[in-house]
Amino acid sequence: MSAMNIYKNPDNGILKKLLERPKSHNTFEKEQLVGTILQAVKTQGDAALYQYAKDFDKVTLKSFLVGKNEIKAAVGQVSNSLKRAIKQAYKNIDKFHKAQKVELAQVETTTGVFCWRKQVAINKVGLYIPGGSAPLFSTVLMLGIPAKIAGCKNIILCTPPNNLGEIPPEILYTANLLGIDKIFKVGGAQAIAAMAFGTESIPQVYKIFGPGNSYVTLAKTLVQKEGIAIDMPAGPSELMVMCDATANSAFVASDLLSQAEHGIDSQVILLCTDCDFIKDVQLQLTTQLEQLPRKTIAQKALENSKLIYVDSKEIAIKIANYYAPEHLIVCGNDVQFYVDNIQNAGSVFIGDYSPESAGDYASGTNHTLPTSGYARVSGGVFLEAFVKNITFQKISKIGLKNLGKTIEIMAEAEGLQAHKNAISIRLKFLKNDI
Amino acid sequence: MSAMNIYKNPDNGILKKLLERPKSHNTFEKEQLVGTILQAVKTQGDAALYQYAKDFDKVTLKSFLVGKNEIKAAVGQVSNSLKRAIKQAYKNIDKFHKAQKVELAQVETTTGVFCWRKQVAINKVGLYIPGGSAPLFSTVLMLGIPAKIAGCKNIILCTPPNNLGEIPPEILYTANLLGIDKIFKVGGAQAIAAMAFGTESIPQVYKIFGPGNSYVTLAKTLVQKEGIAIDMPAGPSELMVMCDATANSAFVASDLLSQAEHGIDSQVILLCTDCDFIKDVQLQLTTQLEQLPRKTIAQKALENSKLIYVDSKEIAIKIANYYAPEHLIVCGNDVQFYVDNIQNAGSVFIGDYSPESAGDYASGTNHTLPTSGYARVSGGVFLEAFVKNITFQKISKIGLKNLGKTIEIMAEAEGLQAHKNAISIRLKFLKNDI
Repeated sequence: MSAMNIYKNPDNGILKKLLERPKSHNTFEKEQLVGTILQAVKTQGDAALYQYAKDFDKVTLKSFLVGKNEIKAAVGQVSNSLKRAIKQAYKNIDKFHKAQKVELAQVETTTGVFCWRKQVAINKVGLYIPGGSAPLFSTVLMLGIPAKIAGCKNIILCTPPNNLGEIPPEILYTANLLGIDKIFKVGGAQAIAAMAFGTESIPQVYKIFGPGNSYVTLAKTLVQKEGIAIDMPAGPSELMVMCDATANSAFVASDLLSQAEHGIDSQVILLCTDCDFIKDVQLQLTTQLEQLPRKTIAQKALENSKLIYVDSKEIAIKIANYYAPEHLIVCGNDVQFYVDNIQNAGSVFIGDYSPESAGDYASGTNHTLPTSGYARVSGGVFLEAFVKNITFQKISKIGLKNLGKTIEIMAEAEGLQAHKNAISIRLKFLKNDI
Repeated sequence: MSAMNIYKNPDNGILKKLLERPKSHNTFEKEQLVGTILQAVKTQGDAALYQYAKDFDKVTLKSFLVGKNEIKAAVGQVSNSLKRAIKQAYKNIDKFHKAQKVELAQVETTTGVFCWRKQVAINKVGLYIPGGSAPLFSTVLMLGIPAKIAGCKNIILCTPPNNLGEIPPEILYTANLLGIDKIFKVGGAQAIAAMAFGTESIPQVYKIFGPGNSYVTLAKTLVQKEGIAIDMPAGPSELMVMCDATANSAFVASDLLSQAEHGIDSQVILLCTDCDFIKDVQLQLTTQLEQLPRKTIAQKALENSKLIYVDSKEIAIKIANYYAPEHLIVCGNDVQFYVDNIQNAGSVFIGDYSPESAGDYASGTNHTLPTSGYARVSGGVFLEAFVKNITFQKISKIGLKNLGKTIEIMAEAEGLQAHKNAISIRLKFLKNDI
């Protein structure tokens, strides 16, 4: 049985269908439940969180804050080889994100009119790290490092405990490495609610970052209405690979599978200008799939996935720009063409030795990336996600003389007399003054 | 009768109440109506828009697109002095926003691991310009100029027609000056719906910009759920002024009034370290208010507004950072302290000759700014709002040898074997290769 079907030169109509994302399953019931959770946490605070810990995490907690002794114990539990790995990743992510610091020069737009802007950290940010079968400590790095570089003063982290009330040591170790010490044992939509509204234990934040299941994502979407900012609407993971016959089919198959194992709603797409190569990939997929512990998940995800033959690199890039993949791997002889012409993608991996998992963990780029076509309007998380720019302007007397008349005329034409007056009263004063 | 009350050294509890924003009036009925409009435009397209033009704009339209002859006529109708003013403003806004172009250098995070990013324009953007008593052509400049600099290929503009089916010539003139020729006679929530979903006449866009009434704002909030990006949630205008006795009370009063005239839900706050100065401002407010054509609006807005005496500049800056004003004017002897310590504000105006209306029109900074405390997490519209950053990485064979082990260990620890395999398969190949 082949893992994925091959489509040859599909026309636009078929292509559109092939590239449809797996439908999300936000039922009315789910929305109701998340709404109820948000409301409960908003009005009852900690009490609601303790109850949800019992209901959802099957644990009776005494407090949410992870204690210093727990962190100390965790540091002892992580193997030295993993510690070294995390530290190398840290160094690279730190280096790439530090390079994103930008100081723009002051601009004198008209003689005497000085305009500039200043990057200032968001004071209070909340990082959400999902639970599940494995500890996502890499996301602690991806969100915590830029938050630290930005200089966010208050960084909190929420993550669900297991039914013994424990947090995975890898998460505690990584957070501790970053100097994040406000770690709370709260997960799910209730964690998002706690960070959005604040409770007795958990401080309110201004912006919430991090992935999560559909309840978490829905909660993030809903708290936006209350003025809380979020990193981005997160959907299922995606990978598109574009190549020709000169790529390595085993590598390509391994990349497709690495994205497919994320979840059953992940989607991977291969665009290739060579039919035989596609068949090789298909073969490789079948072989490699067999050896995966998460085979069932990957197999399901492959059902959403497509192997597409196209006649030319020009067609391939058009399709990529239409699809706007979260991750895009380009390899083979056409890579420079693809790099030059890609308009919509989250993160692009170039050549045979740039697998997507490098960016997931350790190359230095961020793995928090736009899904579901959101790459058309937005990049992933960069340093900028943890700061905002404040505009400044200083106008001298000469500056206002140079600019005043223009402002008066425009304000008058917009029917805003008081706007005009603020200029006129100053110009009059200056006339007497100089 | 005094225009505003004076509060002296209010304690934290009182202060919190004083600084509350005027409540928004999003009733359930309003949400229902906007939901209905979105749905109607989504399913019926142009037909729904023609019907809403009849219902809301009281006009029967034949088409939505503004014709070339209409634009030509508009250019003839705008006075030369206003044209000159618009052109000076254009030049300044263009200069300040062009300076926001940033090219970051490639980073080699580990030997052989190259990471970089590239700014790419958002391909399709929609600008909304509200109707009402006066033509807001300044907003056409503020949104259109950065869109042009960014290189957005498809820029459309929606604005409501009057009951004769006309668009104000100032808006058409300004759009034409910018080279925006897809101008549609559609307003309100239905315009937002049209840009979000696309209709027969109006192309779908990826991101929607621009101010509007509460229906428009609600519609923008709701289409976010469908993956459409928006510039920011826009609320009523705000101004905070911080000064001491050395400022000019007449200037300060004129600034407070310039913001108060925007709408009855505008809010202006004075923080001052001198009681007599505040009384002077109060007097000036009363006098200047009398002469305003929009007196009734400004008077209403002043009811939401406060004159607050504080003992020190340290207290003043704390309050400003708590309030996070959209506009902040600082004048008097403490300006440098305020400039150095402001953490949360949209746009800061420094000194006696930097009135807020300068930034509204012509100094070069953008007037699309965060309201309702959103300045805690976000700045206003900059060039960056019209682009997104794509991440790239290229790893050499040596690079993957340097990084591979780290990725393998981390992927394994997160239980993602296929992520690890994508590395292992390459490392194995390299072992045989080199």
